[in-house]
Amino acid sequence: MKLTILGCHSATPRDNARPTAQILEMKGHLFLIDCGEGTQMALRKNRVKFARIKHIFISHLHGDHVYGLIGLISTFCLLSRDADLTIYGPKGIKELILIQLKLAGVYTSFSLRFRESEINTPQILLEDDSLQVTTIPLEHRIFTHGFLFQEKPGDRHLDIVACQEYEIEKAYYRKIKQGHDYVKENGEVIPNTELTTDGDQPKSYAFCSDTVYKEDIVPQITDVTALYHESTFLKSHEHLCEKTKHSTAEQAAKIAKKATVGTLILGHYSSRYGDYELFRKEAQEVFEKTELAMDGKVFEF
Amino acid sequence: MKLTILGCHSATPRDNARPTAQILEMKGHLFLIDCGEGTQMALRKNRVKFARIKHIFISHLHGDHVYGLIGLISTFCLLSRDADLTIYGPKGIKELILIQLKLAGVYTSFSLRFRESEINTPQILLEDDSLQVTTIPLEHRIFTHGFLFQEKPGDRHLDIVACQEYEIEKAYYRKIKQGHDYVKENGEVIPNTELTTDGDQPKSYAFCSDTVYKEDIVPQITDVTALYHESTFLKSHEHLCEKTKHSTAEQAAKIAKKATVGTLILGHYSSRYGDYELFRKEAQEVFEKTELAMDGKVFEF
Repeated sequence: MKLTILGCHSATPRDNARPTAQILEMKGHLFLIDCGEGTQMALRKNRVKFARIKHIFISHLHGDHVYGLIGLISTFCLLSRDADLTIYGPKGIKELILIQLKLAGVYTSFSLRFRESEINTPQILLEDDSLQVTTIPLEHRIFTHGFLFQEKPGDRHLDIVACQEYEIEKAYYRKIKQGHDYVKENGEVIPNTELTTDGDQPKSYAFCSDTVYKEDIVPQITDVTALYHESTFLKSHEHLCEKTKHSTAEQAAKIAKKATVGTLILGHYSSRYGDYELFRKEAQEVFEKTELAMDGKVFEF
Repeated sequence: MKLTILGCHSATPRDNARPTAQILEMKGHLFLIDCGEGTQMALRKNRVKFARIKHIFISHLHGDHVYGLIGLISTFCLLSRDADLTIYGPKGIKELILIQLKLAGVYTSFSLRFRESEINTPQILLEDDSLQVTTIPLEHRIFTHGFLFQEKPGDRHLDIVACQEYEIEKAYYRKIKQGHDYVKENGEVIPNTELTTDGDQPKSYAFCSDTVYKEDIVPQITDVTALYHESTFLKSHEHLCEKTKHSTAEQAAKIAKKATVGTLILGHYSSRYGDYELFRKEAQEVFEKTELAMDGKVFEF
């Protein structure tokens, strides 16, 4: 699982402080999460292959999370893309994109699908053999959800030496890796646990931005490998959180601690602060395993 | 008159090749012309004061000319702007902006007006004591117009020595600068030409992008101080012009020559060419006074 931060700053974009956008690589997929203005430039800078992005997840319709989307889609059109594209986001996102394509007289050369949300409980957006993506209901000034990306348990690891000792033919390996016992010709059953060891631990990633401190997301994101939680403010500006529906670094850390996540990644910093280390310090007083998102930074799990 | 090129490249924006946007300073106004994605970052980079932009002119609704506008307006809102803003552009631009503000739940703190065009003859968009802005009908794949910015003739220059010789009181100077003759108490008339010399030559700027080669714009832009004319292609790709409704550098130069403009500025280069000097060379074979637009370049006239 690999997470590339394309932008992690709040509100007004600047050349050295891009708005929210991330690329999550999971089980062969390349997911784009949020798409603030300039995301297509950041994708080029980080050498992400446009055609590999087939699913785009938009948390909410504030500009710093979505105003790069129409430009990216237009570029896909110019490049004569043919891969399908599905966009997941709040109700209204389809209208927002289609009106602009219509006014520009642009027709997509590829299949463009929308899946709009307007429900405040977790919804499964995408599921295949290897993973599942679910919305995380958040609370912001407009309808907003985060996303929970979960790998499914993979195959068990084959104990080749044990299989050879039992003289099992290779044709059975696939079933054994899937967890089945082996039945010898004489009827004797070799339990799967003698032939395999546990497979890789499924990884998971929770993206929670933008949101006010919202404790009831904890059960859904408990034990995720990594949690990105917005931290627009430091504790010194906590009084702004209720009106703006944002969180502090300390609040993000409290969520991370309650959910016993593997790593907390902070981001969506207000431009009023010059020193990002202050966010890390504040969070680490509550939750040690805290990292700072930075434009262009890559996290591998 | 000062022109700052914020971006001058066609189609897909890259960090080192921004889409179309320009700032024209004329008679105390700061006009933004077109607003491709990332324009607000370019404005910051070029240290343009946001509050001084009160009129934005959009040539057409293709993404590389307009997809930065919603982000810029959103930033104006975040910065609690109170200066009025008027946006001039093709019919549809109001809907394009308002739907996005509505979906974001954003209300402007300032007066935001739209003036939409859908007429294929020159229309006066803005006029005050010092200047006039008129549309230039162009021909592109969708409804497109350029803009002609014209200073009005200013005051005549006072010949102070002559005025003193005629013992004219200072109270009359303003009328004399405006071109009036002076009548002495005895009824004798001193003609204005004895008291003044010609004022500064009014300057003018024509912005023509995007467009196919369109000779009938020549009468409207004749003798402008500077003409920005798109040159998406070199002559070697002239066969692409008819389908895409773009021009070559040579065609831009032909227009400049026929219109006897002061300076031709080329831009809107296709990304297929590595060497921009090829555009200059091609144009200069037809029209010597050719300059190349480059991101961040400033032209003073």
